[in-house]
Amino acid sequence: MNKNRVERILSALKEMGLTQMLITDPMSVCYLTGVQMNPCERFYGLYLREDGKHVYFLNRMFHVPEDTGAEQVWYSDTDPVMDLVAKYVDHEQALGVDRELKAGFLLPLMEQGAAKGFVEASGAVDRTRAVKDAEEQEKMRRSSKINDLAMGEFRKLIREGVTEEEVAAQMLSIYRSLGAERFSFEPLVAFGANGADPHHAPDGTVLKPGDAVLLDVGCVRDGYCSDMTRTFFYRQASGEHRHIYDTVQKANEAAIARIRPGVPLCELDHTARSLIAAEGYGPNFTHRLGHFIGLGEHEHGDVSAANSQKAEPGMIFSIEPGIYVAGEVGVRVEDLVLVTEDGCEVLNRYTKELEIIM
Amino acid sequence: MNKNRVERILSALKEMGLTQMLITDPMSVCYLTGVQMNPCERFYGLYLREDGKHVYFLNRMFHVPEDTGAEQVWYSDTDPVMDLVAKYVDHEQALGVDRELKAGFLLPLMEQGAAKGFVEASGAVDRTRAVKDAEEQEKMRRSSKINDLAMGEFRKLIREGVTEEEVAAQMLSIYRSLGAERFSFEPLVAFGANGADPHHAPDGTVLKPGDAVLLDVGCVRDGYCSDMTRTFFYRQASGEHRHIYDTVQKANEAAIARIRPGVPLCELDHTARSLIAAEGYGPNFTHRLGHFIGLGEHEHGDVSAANSQKAEPGMIFSIEPGIYVAGEVGVRVEDLVLVTEDGCEVLNRYTKELEIIM
Repeated sequence: MNKNRVERILSALKEMGLTQMLITDPMSVCYLTGVQMNPCERFYGLYLREDGKHVYFLNRMFHVPEDTGAEQVWYSDTDPVMDLVAKYVDHEQALGVDRELKAGFLLPLMEQGAAKGFVEASGAVDRTRAVKDAEEQEKMRRSSKINDLAMGEFRKLIREGVTEEEVAAQMLSIYRSLGAERFSFEPLVAFGANGADPHHAPDGTVLKPGDAVLLDVGCVRDGYCSDMTRTFFYRQASGEHRHIYDTVQKANEAAIARIRPGVPLCELDHTARSLIAAEGYGPNFTHRLGHFIGLGEHEHGDVSAANSQKAEPGMIFSIEPGIYVAGEVGVRVEDLVLVTEDGCEVLNRYTKELEIIM
Repeated sequence: MNKNRVERILSALKEMGLTQMLITDPMSVCYLTGVQMNPCERFYGLYLREDGKHVYFLNRMFHVPEDTGAEQVWYSDTDPVMDLVAKYVDHEQALGVDRELKAGFLLPLMEQGAAKGFVEASGAVDRTRAVKDAEEQEKMRRSSKINDLAMGEFRKLIREGVTEEEVAAQMLSIYRSLGAERFSFEPLVAFGANGADPHHAPDGTVLKPGDAVLLDVGCVRDGYCSDMTRTFFYRQASGEHRHIYDTVQKANEAAIARIRPGVPLCELDHTARSLIAAEGYGPNFTHRLGHFIGLGEHEHGDVSAANSQKAEPGMIFSIEPGIYVAGEVGVRVEDLVLVTEDGCEVLNRYTKELEIIM
C-alpha cells in the first residue's frame, strides 16, 4: 500500500467526520495497492480505517501479490461475501462508501446493520487522486511524451484516398512500438464535417482536399493515461477555417496562460469561452474546457463553469477548447497540463501551429 | 420498448411481490428499448411500473430516438437528478433496483425516502434475459455463424514462426470483413503451455512444432455476442495430448447430448466433469462448464455445480470443458447451445475433430 496516499485519504475522511471507508472502484484500489484488477461481477474492495487496520477483500479467482500491506481476506464464489465484509466494519461508526459501490453489495451490508449509516465519501478519494504525487507526475510525462511521438507518426498516415478507419486501424501498433501498453480510449479520427459530430466514430469516410483532420488520441503507459487532440488540414484551409483554428489555438493558449495555484477552474473555462464567444462562435463550443486524468482517462472533476474548485500544484487536467460547425468542420486543440508552484507545465509538446498536410 | 420483454419482467417482479423497478444496467435497458448507451458516470435508467407508466431518465448529452415507448425525462449535468427520479417513484411501495445501481445514485434515493424499502431485484431481469425470444435467437445464430467462418480464417494464420500477438492482431479485421461489429471480448490466443494459464494474454511467444494452439474468440453482430474455443495442434500431437483432446471433446459432446428442457444445469457440469475425472484429469478442469451469453458476453447465470436452475427452451449458454496441465498444455472445446423444445441446437458448426495443422 502507498502509505502517503492512504494517509491523505484518511485525513480527507476525517474532515468529513468519517473514520472508515470501503473503496471498491478498481482504479482507486490500484492507486493505493498498485494492483490492477478487473473484478467483473465479483466483489472487490479495500476497507480503510483510521487505526490502520486496513483489509483487502479478494476473491480466490483473483491474483494479487502476497504482500500488499493490508490484511488479505479471501472468499470463494460460494461464500456470502458481504457477511464477511460486515464482520470487519466498525458497527458503531458511519461507513464511507464510494459512489461506484453496487446496490448488490450495499443493500446486504445495510441489511446486516454493518455500520451506523452509510455515507457517499468518494470526494475524499477524488481530492486525493486529483493531486498527483511526484511518481505519478513522472508517469504522466512519459505517457504524454509517447503521445507526442505518436502524433508525429499519425500525421504521416494522412494522405490521398485514406479513410478514417484505415488511419485508426494503424494507431495501436504505432503506440505499442513506442512503448505504450494500450489506448487510453478508442481513438477519434474525423475528417471534414465528421469533426463537428460529438458522437462520431472512425468510419469509411475518404479524405478530401480542404478537410480538417481531427485526431483525439491517447495511450496508457505504466497505467497512466495521455490524451491530446490536434486538428490538421489537408491540402488547403479556407479563410474561415483558418480563423476558426486560430481562435481555438488562442483559447487553448489563453486558458493555459492563466493556470496557477489558486485560480478557480471555472475561470479557465471562462477565459477560453469568452475568447471564442468574442469571435462569434460561443454556441459552437459545446462542451466543458477540460477534465481530470491520471490512472483513468476521465477522472472525477472537470474544468467547467460549474466547478469553482481551485487549482492546486500536482493537479493534471486537459485544456481542450473546440469550435464545431455542424455539417462543415470541427476544430479542437487539446493539451494536458500539470499545475506547478508558480504556473503550469504543459505535458504535450507537439506543435499547436496550424499545419496543412500536402 | 419491447412490450413482450417488459411484460415478462413485470410478471417476474410480481412473483417477487414488487410493483416497480429501476433498471440501470445499460445492457438491460438496451434489451428493452433497443438503445445502446455508455452513460459513463452519468445516471441512466429505465423505471418500470405495473400500471405501464414507465419512465426513461436521460441526460441531455445522450442521443436516443424520439419514440422509445416510455416517457422520456431529460436532465442536465447541473440538475439534482435523483430528486427528479424520486418524484416518479411510488413512495408507498418498495422499489426493485438492479445490482448494478451505484451507491452514488441509491443513497440519495434513500435519503429522499423515495420508496418503502429498496430490494435487489436483478433476478427478474436475469430470468427474462436468459430466455431468448425468436428475434434474439436469430441474431445469436448469425453472430455464431460469423464466428465459425472466422475460425476457418484464424486457422490459416497458424504457421511457422508466427507469434500469438501476430495472430491476435489480424482477428479484428477478419471479423469485420465477415460482417461483425467488434470483438465480444479480447481474443485469447495461446500456444503450448500458455494455454494452461487462465490469465494468459497473447504475447510474443513463437509457435513450435507439437504446440497446442488454443483460440477462444468471439464477435458481436447486431449487438449479440458469439464465443467459441477450438484447440488445434501444430505439426504433431503427442499421445498424451491426443488423449487429453479426445477426453475434452467427449466431455463437450456428452454434456451437449444431455441438454433438454428440465435438466438441471448442474447436471450438465457433472456430466462433463465426471467424464474428465474418470480419465484422471479432474483437478485439471479448473472452471465451471459454461456461462450464459447474449447481449453480454457473460450474462448472469452459469452452468456449474452451484446452479440447480433447470434448462428452459430459449436459453443460450456455453459448454466449454477444458483440461489444463500447468507448464505443458491447455485444451478447451467450447460451443454455444440454444435449448429447444426437445433438446438443443448447437450454434457453432466448426468441426470439433482433432486438427493437426501442417
